[in-house]
Amino acid sequence: MTQIVPVILCGGSGTRLWPRSRKSRPKPFIPLIGDTTLFAATALRCSRDAGFADPVVVAGAPHVALVESQLPDPAAGTIIVEPEGKNTAAAIALAAARLPVDAVMLVCPSDHHIGDWAAFRAAAHAAAALAADDWLVSFGIAPTAPETGFGYLKRGGAIEGSGGYRVERFVEKPDLDRARAFLADGGYSWNGGIFAFRAGAFLAELAQHRPDIADAVRAAVAAGHADGQRFHPDPALFATIVGESVDYAVMEKTARAAMVPVAMDWSDIGNWQALHAALPQDAAGNVVRGTAELRGCRNVMVETDGPRVSVVGVENLIIVVDGNEVMVTTPGGAQLVGKLQGAVNQ
Amino acid sequence: MTQIVPVILCGGSGTRLWPRSRKSRPKPFIPLIGDTTLFAATALRCSRDAGFADPVVVAGAPHVALVESQLPDPAAGTIIVEPEGKNTAAAIALAAARLPVDAVMLVCPSDHHIGDWAAFRAAAHAAAALAADDWLVSFGIAPTAPETGFGYLKRGGAIEGSGGYRVERFVEKPDLDRARAFLADGGYSWNGGIFAFRAGAFLAELAQHRPDIADAVRAAVAAGHADGQRFHPDPALFATIVGESVDYAVMEKTARAAMVPVAMDWSDIGNWQALHAALPQDAAGNVVRGTAELRGCRNVMVETDGPRVSVVGVENLIIVVDGNEVMVTTPGGAQLVGKLQGAVNQ
Repeated sequence: MTQIVPVILCGGSGTRLWPRSRKSRPKPFIPLIGDTTLFAATALRCSRDAGFADPVVVAGAPHVALVESQLPDPAAGTIIVEPEGKNTAAAIALAAARLPVDAVMLVCPSDHHIGDWAAFRAAAHAAAALAADDWLVSFGIAPTAPETGFGYLKRGGAIEGSGGYRVERFVEKPDLDRARAFLADGGYSWNGGIFAFRAGAFLAELAQHRPDIADAVRAAVAAGHADGQRFHPDPALFATIVGESVDYAVMEKTARAAMVPVAMDWSDIGNWQALHAALPQDAAGNVVRGTAELRGCRNVMVETDGPRVSVVGVENLIIVVDGNEVMVTTPGGAQLVGKLQGAVNQ
Repeated sequence: MTQIVPVILCGGSGTRLWPRSRKSRPKPFIPLIGDTTLFAATALRCSRDAGFADPVVVAGAPHVALVESQLPDPAAGTIIVEPEGKNTAAAIALAAARLPVDAVMLVCPSDHHIGDWAAFRAAAHAAAALAADDWLVSFGIAPTAPETGFGYLKRGGAIEGSGGYRVERFVEKPDLDRARAFLADGGYSWNGGIFAFRAGAFLAELAQHRPDIADAVRAAVAAGHADGQRFHPDPALFATIVGESVDYAVMEKTARAAMVPVAMDWSDIGNWQALHAALPQDAAGNVVRGTAELRGCRNVMVETDGPRVSVVGVENLIIVVDGNEVMVTTPGGAQLVGKLQGAVNQ
C-alpha cells in the first residue's frame, strides 16, 4: 500500500459563513459541525493510524498559530507559510517541491465536511495507487443534488484493476437544467478539490502547462528558509507567482486525468444553507446552537454565541449572532452573505 | 371651557414589545416613536398650555421614579402610587376619590400613540363638556382597519349641541367578518380607553354597579398618606380591591354612556407589527433603527441597541436586538411575543 502524504490546504476564507467565520479565525478553524474544527477533522482523517505519513500544511501567515494549535499532533509534519494567497496551483506546487519526487500527495482542502471517513480512506488509497502510476487523480464525489455551485467530472473509461476511471472531461459550474441532467445521467461526479498526485508527476505537468508558475514556485522554495517545522518561501519571489486554480492550471489540460468515485457524505459547507443541511435537525427542520426559543417555526437555524434568540412564526430562515454582529438570511440569500459590508470590510 | 384634569394611567406592561419593553422600563417609558416616550408625549398633550390642569398620574411603585423623571414639569401634579395593579376601574376611582367631586377627569392611557394632537384636544374639550353634564364619555376612535384586537362602540343618537352621541352599545373584540362589517357600516368606533368623567359622577356610577370596588377604594384612600407629590393608598386595604376594567365595571352598565368621535392618527402600538406600521418606512416598507444593512429585503423592521444587524433576502419580518436578547418574529407572530419565555420570566 502506497504511503500517502496529506497536503492540507488552508486557503478558504469562508466569507459566506460570516459572521461566525472571520478573517482572524476563518472557516477551517471554527467548530462548525460538532466540537471539532474542519481543519482538525481533516488532519485526523489522514492520521498516521490510518496509514498516512505526517502532513504538510499550507497556510497563510496569519493562520499558522491556529494550525499549530489545532494539529492533532503538533510536533508531526511541516507547515509551509504562504506570504499571501496564490490559489491552489501554487499551494500544491509548494508542497510538491518540498517532497521527494516519488512521494504520493493527497491534496485535501481543510474547509469541507466528510461524514464517512472509511469511504474517504478507501478512496484515498485507490487514488494513491493510481497516482503512483503517474495519474493525476481527482476524487469524484457522488452527487446527491443538482448543485449549480460545483464543477463536475464526466467519468470516462475504467482504468483496469484500479477502481478508477479516466476523466472524460471537466465541466464548469452548470445551470440547473444541466445539473439535473448530470444527476440523472449517473456518469458525473462533483469535483470537490481532493486530489492525489506523485509529487514529481504533478510538477512535471505544471512545468508543461504553466511553466511560469512552476518556475516561480521552484525559485521561491530554493530561496526560502526553514524555521523549525515551518518553511517560509522567499516572499519577494513568491510575490511574482500568478495565482491560478489547480483545475485550470493542470487538471483540465493534462492527458493523465483520472478519478476515483466516492460517496462519503461530503459537503463543502459553502454557506449557511449548506451548514444547516449538514447538521442534525429536529422534526420541524430546525437547528439550534446556543440559547434560543422557537415558537411555530419550521426550517429555521439559530446559532448564537451568547444572547438568547427568540423566534416566532418563522419559516426558512437562518439567524446567526456572533460578537457584535447579527446576520439573518433566507436560504436563498445565503450565497450573498459574503457580499455584506460586515463580511467584506472585516 | 371646562378645565380638565388629565388622569394618566401607567398600567400597561407592554410585554408584546419585549425585549425593548422590560419589566423595569415598560412600554410607556421607552422612546418607541421619535425621541419622546409615550408617557412623556401623553403628559405633553395635556399640558397647562393647552388648557389642562396639572395631571394626576396613577403608576405602580416600581415606575414612580420613571414617572418623575419623564414628567415635562416634575413639580406639577400628583402621583398616586399603586402597591399593585388592580386594573382600570380601581385606578380611575383612586384618582376620582382624590379630586373635588366636580372636577372633570380625562383618563388617558400612557402607552398609546396619537399623531394629531389638535384633534385630540378638540375631542377632549367636547368630551369634558359632556362629562360636566354627568355623561360618562368615551373617545370613539375612527377605525382605519378591520381590527379584531379592539373593542368597538356603536354610535347611538346625537346629544344635541354637544358634538357627541349616546353609545348604543359596547361590542367585544369582534371576529374579522364582523370587524369588516363595522368598518363598512361607519357607525362603529374603536374603544381606545380614553374617557372623560366628572369625578363625582364616576364614583356614583361605580358605587351603583360595583359597590365593592367603590368601597374598597374609598377605604384605601381614606387610610392612605401623602408624601410630597406622591399619594400612597393603604396597601392592606388596597389589596382587597377586586381588579376589573372600567369597561366591564362601569361603561357597559351605565345608562349615561356617551362618545365623541375623533380621528387623531391613533395607535395603541399593541405589538411590533403595530409599531412597524406607525413608523416612517422606506419605499420597500423597511424600517431601520440602529446599525443595519438590508439587502433585497421588503417590509422588514430592524431595531438594535448596538450590534449591527445584516439581513439578506427577507420579507415581512421584525428583528429586535436589545441587551442580551434577540427577538425575531413574523408580523403574524407579533401577538405571541408576550408569551415568549424571555417576556414571561423577566
